Amino acid sequence: MRAMTQSRRIVLATRPTGMCDGDTVRTEVVPIPEPADGEAVVRLKWISIDPTIRTWMDDAPGYLPPIELGAVIRSGGIGEVVASENDAYPVGATVFGMFGWQDHTVIGGAHGNAQIVPDGVDPTAALSVFGTTGMTAYFGLLDIGRPEPGNTVVVSGAAGATGSIVGQIAKIKGAANVVGIAGTDEKCAWLVDELGFDAAINYRTEHVEERLRELCPDGIDVYFDNVGGEILDACLGQLALRARVVCCGAISSYNGRESLPGVKNTFNLIIQRARMEGFLILDYLDRFSEAQADMVTWVLEGKIAHRVHVVDGLEESLNALNLLFTGGNTGKVIVKVED
Amino acid sequence: MRAMTQSRRIVLATRPTGMCDGDTVRTEVVPIPEPADGEAVVRLKWISIDPTIRTWMDDAPGYLPPIELGAVIRSGGIGEVVASENDAYPVGATVFGMFGWQDHTVIGGAHGNAQIVPDGVDPTAALSVFGTTGMTAYFGLLDIGRPEPGNTVVVSGAAGATGSIVGQIAKIKGAANVVGIAGTDEKCAWLVDELGFDAAINYRTEHVEERLRELCPDGIDVYFDNVGGEILDACLGQLALRARVVCCGAISSYNGRESLPGVKNTFNLIIQRARMEGFLILDYLDRFSEAQADMVTWVLEGKIAHRVHVVDGLEESLNALNLLFTGGNTGKVIVKVED
Repeated sequence: MRAMTQSRRIVLATRPTGMCDGDTVRTEVVPIPEPADGEAVVRLKWISIDPTIRTWMDDAPGYLPPIELGAVIRSGGIGEVVASENDAYPVGATVFGMFGWQDHTVIGGAHGNAQIVPDGVDPTAALSVFGTTGMTAYFGLLDIGRPEPGNTVVVSGAAGATGSIVGQIAKIKGAANVVGIAGTDEKCAWLVDELGFDAAINYRTEHVEERLRELCPDGIDVYFDNVGGEILDACLGQLALRARVVCCGAISSYNGRESLPGVKNTFNLIIQRARMEGFLILDYLDRFSEAQADMVTWVLEGKIAHRVHVVDGLEESLNALNLLFTGGNTGKVIVKVED
Repeated sequence: MRAMTQSRRIVLATRPTGMCDGDTVRTEVVPIPEPADGEAVVRLKWISIDPTIRTWMDDAPGYLPPIELGAVIRSGGIGEVVASENDAYPVGATVFGMFGWQDHTVIGGAHGNAQIVPDGVDPTAALSVFGTTGMTAYFGLLDIGRPEPGNTVVVSGAAGATGSIVGQIAKIKGAANVVGIAGTDEKCAWLVDELGFDAAINYRTEHVEERLRELCPDGIDVYFDNVGGEILDACLGQLALRARVVCCGAISSYNGRESLPGVKNTFNLIIQRARMEGFLILDYLDRFSEAQADMVTWVLEGKIAHRVHVVDGLEESLNALNLLFTGGNTGKVIVKVED
């Protein structure tokens, strides 16, 4: 048992070379921090588990610096202010920020800022459909993919947190044919039966290229890529004229980029005068409110459903992360930190 | 000796699986055609040799149908009208069109149309700097690559017909750092000493990735890709924020796409929020005049130099094409058909 004055934090112990394992992180127990002037202390409640966390564990250039050895694993989260010397963060407030894998964190002052989560917003929804996951789906699809009514839209990682929202927004925007690619028959059934995708491909049991040819006879107008690798290549090979490929993630490569086969069908970008473009949701922070207004409307109208996969216990965070790479999750993975 | 009433044409005999060889084409001798009403007969003088011709020899989907077995090899060319039943094409006029590898062709009527080449325009310039080659450089760089003053621009196939023009336009438009990638020291010296490139990399003798890191310390803002494959991958790995990759050609793959390693650095499109986009010059035909006005000005001002590599004799056309893949040319390859 930890004393009530102690706080756990999960730090990077060694850089993984493949999938994370027991050597990757270690748990440290430290005193609960006290707020200095201008600071507040947050007790974590919910932790957002996202594939990109794995990329921050590599000592490689990225859009954020690598997590340093010995530093707390970086991630988004929601918690409650439990001590405060900052009027912007009153005790009892629910806040969102990049809080990391730990029981407590300090915000304000020299530390990072946090956002107040309004009363009445479900914290798991705030981390998923109304949070960066939903925003990633929204801006990636609409700003980069730009689907037009009647288009064929293909989404990989379709039963994941982002992919499942992408397909539903595509239908709302008038796509005639939305095809999801996922890794189990159950996920595929969920996409078609509950989320309104027109079809789904189980990439573990079906031949993706052949199935894409059957399901997208006029080619792919928008491909939303969460996985990279062979599935990206298959989709590049079947682009329609002036297609848009949205590079959102490359989960197939995060546990070892070097060993994967490369993408061969880039020549088709020329033949089809197609565009492939990457984006990061960090660049859209100042446009979140416009997207959230749409998302709230669509959720209330029943046009967007979402699923949260809750894993219990801070110390399960690494296992929760690994679920994303084994395909063990459907929808958004969130760790519920013990009270 | 052929009789004065006979005409040669080079047709596709077998589809090549790698580099073209003696089995790929055969020469047929046929009577010189006579113009029907509305037609004219053109005597070929100059044939444009372009990498894309090799792609038309494959029985694979492309932006134009494959050349059929037994059909004349497709290519652009310039010739003289020698017989005419069409007032738009008077005898003696110089014309440009997709005339193929042959001594004579028919235009007008049910055949394709041709463009009159104005008096005083050098025909080799009309096929290179003022023709589709120059237009490809112009629109690919400016419309897709969109260089900004101060940018770093990298061009592969830089001593080729298109690449050599791309680098010069980039300098005209204020690029601070233009780096060409080519295959011999002589080509590299030509780029830097005569065309005003800031630096050049000999990919056969230098380590492209390392040299790019040295020469482009702030990353690549615009990469104009004529080659695909490993050089494309190296450049993808060193993109700057919001970089643009112009997919113009993939000459490294035209003699056997399957056997090449794929591109692994597409993930960097995400990290750098970068865009990779293909284009075809066919889509810009109605904008050629605006580009030609600029190109004529720049050539007259001495801001753009170009080089033509003339190969003598229609029956050398296949060897001329192969030069593009062995790197035996500098600048635009043109076949001079015998008088």
